Amino acid sequence: MLIVKKFGGTSVADKDRIYNVAERCLEDYKNGNDLVVVLSAMGKMTDVLIDQAKEINPNPSKRALDMLLVTGEQTSVALMEMAFDKLGVPAISLNAFQVAMHTTSVYGSARLKRIDTERIRHELEGKRIVIVTGFQGVNKYDDFTTLGRGGSDTTAVALAAALHADKCEIYTDVDGVYTADPRIVPGARKLKEISYDEMLDLATLGAGVLHNRSVEMARKYGVELVVRSSLNRNEGTTVREVTKVERMLVSGVAADKNATRISVIGLEDKPGIAFKLFDYIAKAGINVDMILQSIGRENKKDISFTVDENTADDAVRALEEHAKSLNAERIDVKKNVAKVSVVGAGMMSNPGVAAKMFECLFNAGINIRMISTSEIRVTVLIDENDCDRAVQAVHEGFGLED
Amino acid sequence: MLIVKKFGGTSVADKDRIYNVAERCLEDYKNGNDLVVVLSAMGKMTDVLIDQAKEINPNPSKRALDMLLVTGEQTSVALMEMAFDKLGVPAISLNAFQVAMHTTSVYGSARLKRIDTERIRHELEGKRIVIVTGFQGVNKYDDFTTLGRGGSDTTAVALAAALHADKCEIYTDVDGVYTADPRIVPGARKLKEISYDEMLDLATLGAGVLHNRSVEMARKYGVELVVRSSLNRNEGTTVREVTKVERMLVSGVAADKNATRISVIGLEDKPGIAFKLFDYIAKAGINVDMILQSIGRENKKDISFTVDENTADDAVRALEEHAKSLNAERIDVKKNVAKVSVVGAGMMSNPGVAAKMFECLFNAGINIRMISTSEIRVTVLIDENDCDRAVQAVHEGFGLED
Repeated sequence: MLIVKKFGGTSVADKDRIYNVAERCLEDYKNGNDLVVVLSAMGKMTDVLIDQAKEINPNPSKRALDMLLVTGEQTSVALMEMAFDKLGVPAISLNAFQVAMHTTSVYGSARLKRIDTERIRHELEGKRIVIVTGFQGVNKYDDFTTLGRGGSDTTAVALAAALHADKCEIYTDVDGVYTADPRIVPGARKLKEISYDEMLDLATLGAGVLHNRSVEMARKYGVELVVRSSLNRNEGTTVREVTKVERMLVSGVAADKNATRISVIGLEDKPGIAFKLFDYIAKAGINVDMILQSIGRENKKDISFTVDENTADDAVRALEEHAKSLNAERIDVKKNVAKVSVVGAGMMSNPGVAAKMFECLFNAGINIRMISTSEIRVTVLIDENDCDRAVQAVHEGFGLED
Repeated sequence: MLIVKKFGGTSVADKDRIYNVAERCLEDYKNGNDLVVVLSAMGKMTDVLIDQAKEINPNPSKRALDMLLVTGEQTSVALMEMAFDKLGVPAISLNAFQVAMHTTSVYGSARLKRIDTERIRHELEGKRIVIVTGFQGVNKYDDFTTLGRGGSDTTAVALAAALHADKCEIYTDVDGVYTADPRIVPGARKLKEISYDEMLDLATLGAGVLHNRSVEMARKYGVELVVRSSLNRNEGTTVREVTKVERMLVSGVAADKNATRISVIGLEDKPGIAFKLFDYIAKAGINVDMILQSIGRENKKDISFTVDENTADDAVRALEEHAKSLNAERIDVKKNVAKVSVVGAGMMSNPGVAAKMFECLFNAGINIRMISTSEIRVTVLIDENDCDRAVQAVHEGFGLED
């Protein structure tokens, strides 16, 4: 089997952990598998590098910052090669140039376009474990780029797709995907498998195990993903196109506390006003999540939407810049809100899920501020203070416990 | 003018020094010059990386070590790009892959073979200051290599040669080449200019300002070298093919305290024995400096030679391994010796230089243990304790003071 394994920064944070990873890979290698190991920068190294950059220039150019940041993963892969060498295993470390991993030109948030597999295949044929820098690429100017959030997972999935690997294992500090965050719901159950779509909704909605970019790419190329812990031998969760006839109604409950609700009150009720508003937001580079439009009084309407709390100030600024054109009465910002979602491929054919969820929240005395649904997901916006209780209530209400 | 400037690790050790370098370059840039800036790793970063490697594997493979070490210079150039950016100067950082700097395959001590200048020329045409990682290259396997000692100087000179630069400035912590080490001889005089050959002898013999590899390359390609300080604006010393008719008899006195003398006593006086001995040493990868063969008693002879003190133990081991074949009576090792040399193109046509030097040493009561001469150099081996006094005496004897 050809297996791509990805280990995050905490898994390679120090000597002991580096050897833990190396020994773990060694087992698979000894069993005759070909291995490609994708690594992130060690521990907090990326943060340290960013601080170092900001000391020189509080607002460093993204090109220069990428040039600096890529040294983080290169350090990890070089040290890992040394660890394998010490264990007597032939291994070779490669950076984005050496592979090469071609990306779009946007520094700081590039997208992978194409991966040359020749060098990796050559090294695999020589029975070497190939260690590749995650998170980074090379653009058409022959400059280093970084892939932004979830970058190393994306590197791993893209490599698995390009190499037609049998599976892509993402090692993290939790041992799989749970029906809810086990820190909030002690009875949360680990899922043995989950479909790409369900995982995508869980990833997007703040389950925090996998970044949605990597899940999207895995779905697109049919890469079998396994999420498991680097700290124990538990089996983990497999993400794939699940073909079971009988699907679980709900596979999990996700929560995201990083939401901010922005309400634009008293807009004129005329065509094009929503387009105009979200165009301003989009041009400011801000992703909008839930959207709710309500009919107001006297030919007026209100539009509310949620954004990541990090981008809330930028969103408000963008709206205020165009206050005249929008002609709204006021902008209302509510920061301490949270999104709670139930996700499950089974709900497509079962209209009662939303109602059931609302019942659970009602019984727990929790007020719903916004609602948004997709084919396999129901999301509500509630006060952040109610979030943990809401997750517990919904988890229990759908009988997801062990 | 196109100028290549090289700054060592101490010149970029922290934020203030990085800005000092940037501002210095800015002056030349504003005067309309094209600049290529070659940087070493910051301060002690290379040592820190080596320690980090040895923690993982006390004997890391040279390939993996180079993969790790090159992150040092990449950090320097990325931060320098940010500093230029802050000062409002267009600049771009490039590593060995991006340039590309092609080297031989030997990790840890590769030699530059060829430099692609297209990317650099393109950036210079765009009026950008080009910042290049020193010390590193890429070999035919598309792997990073490092150039070994004096590597960054060599990178700078090679770039100057490939780009047909008008000059190559090597910035260091002294402000030029002196007639002797100013710490030992307070009256030492800074040379305004010096020939490649003289500089080469001074470099090889421990003046410590420039590595001989870079001087050799500068001579080969006729690159005008300027050695100057990054801490002041003094003019420095220019190294070039000096064409003055009247040459100074002696241009400087150099000392090297890192010598060890090894004597092989009581060898059979038959043909081939010296070849055999130095073949063993060469096969152990050890450079031999001075060699002296003396006629011994009863058909025996002694051979003495000097090596760098770091390689002395290896040399002795190599000899002991072949003790039987060499059939020597014993091996004598003397560690606390020093080499003192006078260098000067003028001595070619002046046979009295050696005699004058010996007279100076005799007057100072210093015992000479070995003598070696070339066309433009006289070197003596003396006790390390006598070294500083010897340099002072010779410097004074040849009237080199200010």
